Amino acid sequence: MRSAVLLLAITGLLPATIYAAPKNIIYMIGDGMGPSYVSAYRYYQHDPASVTVTTTLYDDLLTGMAGTYPDDDTVVTDSAASATALATGIKSFNGAISVDRQHIPIGTMMQLAKRLGKANGIVASSQVNHATPAAFLAHSSSRRNMNDIADMYLDYRIDGKPVADLIMGGGTQYFVREDRNLITGFTELGYQYVDDYNQLDNLTRLPAMALLTESALPAVLNSDYDSMLGPLTAKALQLLSTADKGFVLMVEGSQIDWCGHDNDIACAMAEMHDFAQAIKVAKAYVDANPDTLLIITADHETGGLSLGSAGVYEWRTDVIKKVKATGREIARQLQQLENQQDIHKRFTELTGISLDKAQLNLLFTALQDEDEKIGRNQILQFINEKSYTGWTTGGHTAADVPVMAYGMQAEQFRGFMDNTAIAKKLIQFIQQTK
Amino acid sequence: MRSAVLLLAITGLLPATIYAAPKNIIYMIGDGMGPSYVSAYRYYQHDPASVTVTTTLYDDLLTGMAGTYPDDDTVVTDSAASATALATGIKSFNGAISVDRQHIPIGTMMQLAKRLGKANGIVASSQVNHATPAAFLAHSSSRRNMNDIADMYLDYRIDGKPVADLIMGGGTQYFVREDRNLITGFTELGYQYVDDYNQLDNLTRLPAMALLTESALPAVLNSDYDSMLGPLTAKALQLLSTADKGFVLMVEGSQIDWCGHDNDIACAMAEMHDFAQAIKVAKAYVDANPDTLLIITADHETGGLSLGSAGVYEWRTDVIKKVKATGREIARQLQQLENQQDIHKRFTELTGISLDKAQLNLLFTALQDEDEKIGRNQILQFINEKSYTGWTTGGHTAADVPVMAYGMQAEQFRGFMDNTAIAKKLIQFIQQTK
Ligand SMILES: [Zn+2]
Ligand SMILES: [Zn+2]
Repeated sequence: MRSAVLLLAITGLLPATIYAAPKNIIYMIGDGMGPSYVSAYRYYQHDPASVTVTTTLYDDLLTGMAGTYPDDDTVVTDSAASATALATGIKSFNGAISVDRQHIPIGTMMQLAKRLGKANGIVASSQVNHATPAAFLAHSSSRRNMNDIADMYLDYRIDGKPVADLIMGGGTQYFVREDRNLITGFTELGYQYVDDYNQLDNLTRLPAMALLTESALPAVLNSDYDSMLGPLTAKALQLLSTADKGFVLMVEGSQIDWCGHDNDIACAMAEMHDFAQAIKVAKAYVDANPDTLLIITADHETGGLSLGSAGVYEWRTDVIKKVKATGREIARQLQQLENQQDIHKRFTELTGISLDKAQLNLLFTALQDEDEKIGRNQILQFINEKSYTGWTTGGHTAADVPVMAYGMQAEQFRGFMDNTAIAKKLIQFIQQTK
Repeated sequence: MRSAVLLLAITGLLPATIYAAPKNIIYMIGDGMGPSYVSAYRYYQHDPASVTVTTTLYDDLLTGMAGTYPDDDTVVTDSAASATALATGIKSFNGAISVDRQHIPIGTMMQLAKRLGKANGIVASSQVNHATPAAFLAHSSSRRNMNDIADMYLDYRIDGKPVADLIMGGGTQYFVREDRNLITGFTELGYQYVDDYNQLDNLTRLPAMALLTESALPAVLNSDYDSMLGPLTAKALQLLSTADKGFVLMVEGSQIDWCGHDNDIACAMAEMHDFAQAIKVAKAYVDANPDTLLIITADHETGGLSLGSAGVYEWRTDVIKKVKATGREIARQLQQLENQQDIHKRFTELTGISLDKAQLNLLFTALQDEDEKIGRNQILQFINEKSYTGWTTGGHTAADVPVMAYGMQAEQFRGFMDNTAIAKKLIQFIQQTK
């Protein structure tokens, strides 16, 4: 690419500093996907029968790392401030949804793209008005204003139309409310709408919307699916690909972060796998459509995850692979059982771990606590201890996050950069829409 | 570079796949320098009066990330196995010093360079026969064979000469022993020798050796120096730069790892600063000598360091900057005091932290423990808790490590790679020595 441009420059056809902008941008954000999650997923998917560890798609596409600090009195960001940085190129305070420190709205790349005639889509495995997608479409002084943000998805108009041509994920509770039914508003504007994952095929053209659950999509580890984001991303790309002036699609692997907050490693690996399937779909799209840029990053790290803990030089993926449900789901199931033998049996079925008498007593006591977190945390502690998975927090950390890029202009995202630099470059590309 | 080669290829002068090899290689290894250490150092050196966080040299030179797993029944490496990978391009078991799983020696890049007429040097802030430098010069089934390894520095010969033309660091206890004085052996072979940091100027030509302390160099935080590795690296480059066929220099920031093992964040930041000063010197050398490649990486992560802990979205560099000595040194000083008031006063002088009554009692009790680690750990716990610095282990983790490259052929080290790929590329360059 560079060489071709240089040759043209030498022959006088082009100034060397001007690059063609990609027509389409696929922007994928793994919420909470710190660098250790990428390392972890590589070892997790490794077949122990093979001597060398095979790289994952995350590895193959890695180009750099990004810093994530917010414009706040801390270096540790929340998802709202970092999504604001990633959607607008401007840092703000923790909690901000694309407003600056003075609470004044900042234009987002999706709004710019819409203004310039590009199609826009967002896909999330959380409720679609969660902080990360919200910062691309709406403005609010607080990410907690979930109904206001949902309202804005319909009410904020550019040339009379909502910003997003495509919205997919969960969240009916925010869009079909007693005080207002936003879905009616969208369908009146011509949006096709489905609320069932098995009816995705009924979406045949833009604008379109799919709200598949009341709140977030189910955790992949608890679901019957190997991946939900993969098929959603495929459908999104199918619909968006018809846009004359190209598109900007944001896909969020929302729940990596939630597993991190719970310190639930099996949950995190399943969500990383889900997100990887979406990346696979996106990469194939770029291969078929070379005028597309695929860019992947995270908003921050969650949990202070480490592979190895407590002085032991091991990280046991065999332990993690045997876990069949999230800590929340295991706790829920165990709390429904009365008999201690049944609890132990079910625990072992769901985790592959046998407990000794002292450990069983810890589990029984924890499950009886009226704070339901206590039982869950005890279950996860057994898994973390046995697999030597370390965590330092139930919150976020200031770790730099990986940046992956593929396709047209991917070489612009090499090395270390601030998270705002990613958005600034994408906005520069969008500004060149023809 | 690429474009120039491509143009030549197009004009038929060169096959497009052949690149010129750098004449000189500066290979810098931050022992234990996981990605969080690089993020941490950026925030640590940040001036809070400035709105944006300035990048560090580590950031400016970042090109990729490397995986570190050993050829063992674990994915968590020790420094010996990873140094073997980084020095030979071949993975081995934890503890191995450039021998394979069958304990057969593997040729190292330093030995190859010597054979081809290049000059060689190693600089370390630990004893020079510590695992990382050892894997470049010697072979052993165990890193613990410290005397054997020191012997091999003198006894392993290529064309009648030891492998290293320059050895700088600590470790007289291994080189001047009751059973053997290796220094005599080196000086008889024509090595200039100094054992005092203030006499470095007495080294005027190769071969040369400087063993400045009995074991490791002092921790920078406890020393009067801002950096010791910086001046050592400058001296090494001055001596090596005269070599006709170029040189390979390995510089290890050895003690980043040791601070990590202690979970001592102020210690780690001082060592990161020391290593950064050495990188600054090396980068300036590349700027003046463009036929040089500078490559920087780590052997593994130590401690499971995270910026932020215990659910709090903060990482307090102001707390860390006030700490004036390592946890070991603070404990040593406090354990010499009798009076509790004196202990509290000195503790606050050295850490900037005031303790309440309950905390003071914890400190007094810990300092009285016959296990000296207990007092140190309590001191470091106060610093970690107040600064929200998280750690998961006193050992290593399987985190991927940063890769930085600068100068000739730096573009070969982009993206994700296995640690062996770094060595393989360097060996390929060395093989092209003319
Ligand atoms: Zn979060
Ligand atoms: Zn170590």
